[in-house]
Amino acid sequence: MAAGKVWLVGAGPGDVELLTLKAARVLAGADIWLVDDLVGEAVLDLAAPTARVLRVGKRGGCRSTPQSFINRLLLRHARQGRVVVRVKGGDAMLFGRGGEEAAWLRAAGIEVEVVNGLTSGMLAATAIDVPLTHRDCCRGVAFVTAHAQDGGEPDWLALAQSGLTLAIYMGMQRLDRISDGLIAGGLPAATPVAVVQSASTPEERRLLTTLAQLPVQARAAGLSSPAIVLVGEVVGLSPASLAGVAQRAA
Amino acid sequence: MAAGKVWLVGAGPGDVELLTLKAARVLAGADIWLVDDLVGEAVLDLAAPTARVLRVGKRGGCRSTPQSFINRLLLRHARQGRVVVRVKGGDAMLFGRGGEEAAWLRAAGIEVEVVNGLTSGMLAATAIDVPLTHRDCCRGVAFVTAHAQDGGEPDWLALAQSGLTLAIYMGMQRLDRISDGLIAGGLPAATPVAVVQSASTPEERRLLTTLAQLPVQARAAGLSSPAIVLVGEVVGLSPASLAGVAQRAA
Repeated sequence: MAAGKVWLVGAGPGDVELLTLKAARVLAGADIWLVDDLVGEAVLDLAAPTARVLRVGKRGGCRSTPQSFINRLLLRHARQGRVVVRVKGGDAMLFGRGGEEAAWLRAAGIEVEVVNGLTSGMLAATAIDVPLTHRDCCRGVAFVTAHAQDGGEPDWLALAQSGLTLAIYMGMQRLDRISDGLIAGGLPAATPVAVVQSASTPEERRLLTTLAQLPVQARAAGLSSPAIVLVGEVVGLSPASLAGVAQRAA
Repeated sequence: MAAGKVWLVGAGPGDVELLTLKAARVLAGADIWLVDDLVGEAVLDLAAPTARVLRVGKRGGCRSTPQSFINRLLLRHARQGRVVVRVKGGDAMLFGRGGEEAAWLRAAGIEVEVVNGLTSGMLAATAIDVPLTHRDCCRGVAFVTAHAQDGGEPDWLALAQSGLTLAIYMGMQRLDRISDGLIAGGLPAATPVAVVQSASTPEERRLLTTLAQLPVQARAAGLSSPAIVLVGEVVGLSPASLAGVAQRAA
């Protein structure tokens, strides 16, 4: 039997049009899909009529499919000669554990290919009409997670000193620590901050605030995961028309 | 006359299949294109037969089209009711000055919409078969430029202390400073480093080395811009089969 293959596909932040041409081609040609929670429903419409689509979401705190079970499923179907797609929201290789799945499969002799996807941190900036970098105020951007497997947290001091725009993932349960940590690290309390929930989808919501006001205002607005907390001077370039809390324009 | 519109489109790192579905749709529907240097030739094939395609590259050090001229061209064509696309390599809002163009056009009353694109830092990791983040070794990734308008450089100390994977853009003229700065900042001399030139294209080349050896080995290999310098423990996860300098597999 011909060997199968596993494609690790980033489905982007939600809007199905933000898939790459390559992702759309690979998804349409797959025999079996293993799909994470944050993948938009419209993406599933790209499946071939004969494809099997399995949901294996493991969103933090909810019911979950163990990683070892997912790995074994990927392996079994690839060994049976199938074209398998592992579909993740955003980019599969950024906070997606895609690297662990790829390494495990390669060690088992399975061919793996990655198709990168747009990550929600990029779309968060676009949602508030700002760039991620601007030569007047920042030399780059850091995509960081506020949630760590070991219960630890990022080096807020180093991040505060870095001069980078910060796009913080999985931060909605840690808004106080983000605010306190970055202010203690040296960022001004008035540093512009945005929270963008479900960027690029019809459920998109956004809040423009400051580092000091972030926890209170985000809670008052009822914002929740999945969301990006965007911190830095570039956020201050957002047009005044977007101030406060806003739903996405229809 | 109906008002025109300017789309700021990220064309991705080179491979035309890495465009988003949205980018492909918008490009195909445009009346006029203003295109940067790093956009792949195959992308231009998406232009409508009636579209005008203007090259306005301004690669560092070479002949260039002044930014003010580009701005005025965008404005003029939009005011004439045309659908204008400003096409940049990678993502238009990350080191692309897309934010400046968007702000200038919006101030002039022109509707602007951004279509994000994959950035070459993401593809650099994919080229060496590693993720950008891994829960065992890094809480995120920083996309930074080694080249600054003001002649300054990034805060290497803060970056070295950040615990992030570093994807350094426009660094090929500053390899000594990258190596010295990050080692002085506290990163071990043996920190794994990759250089990936022209990621995702047929011209892709890659080098696996260490922070201390980076300048000597990259020069010996004849690597040049456009390239990403990828620094961090994740680089060490690259399969041994990719060691040394390699052309992309055919």
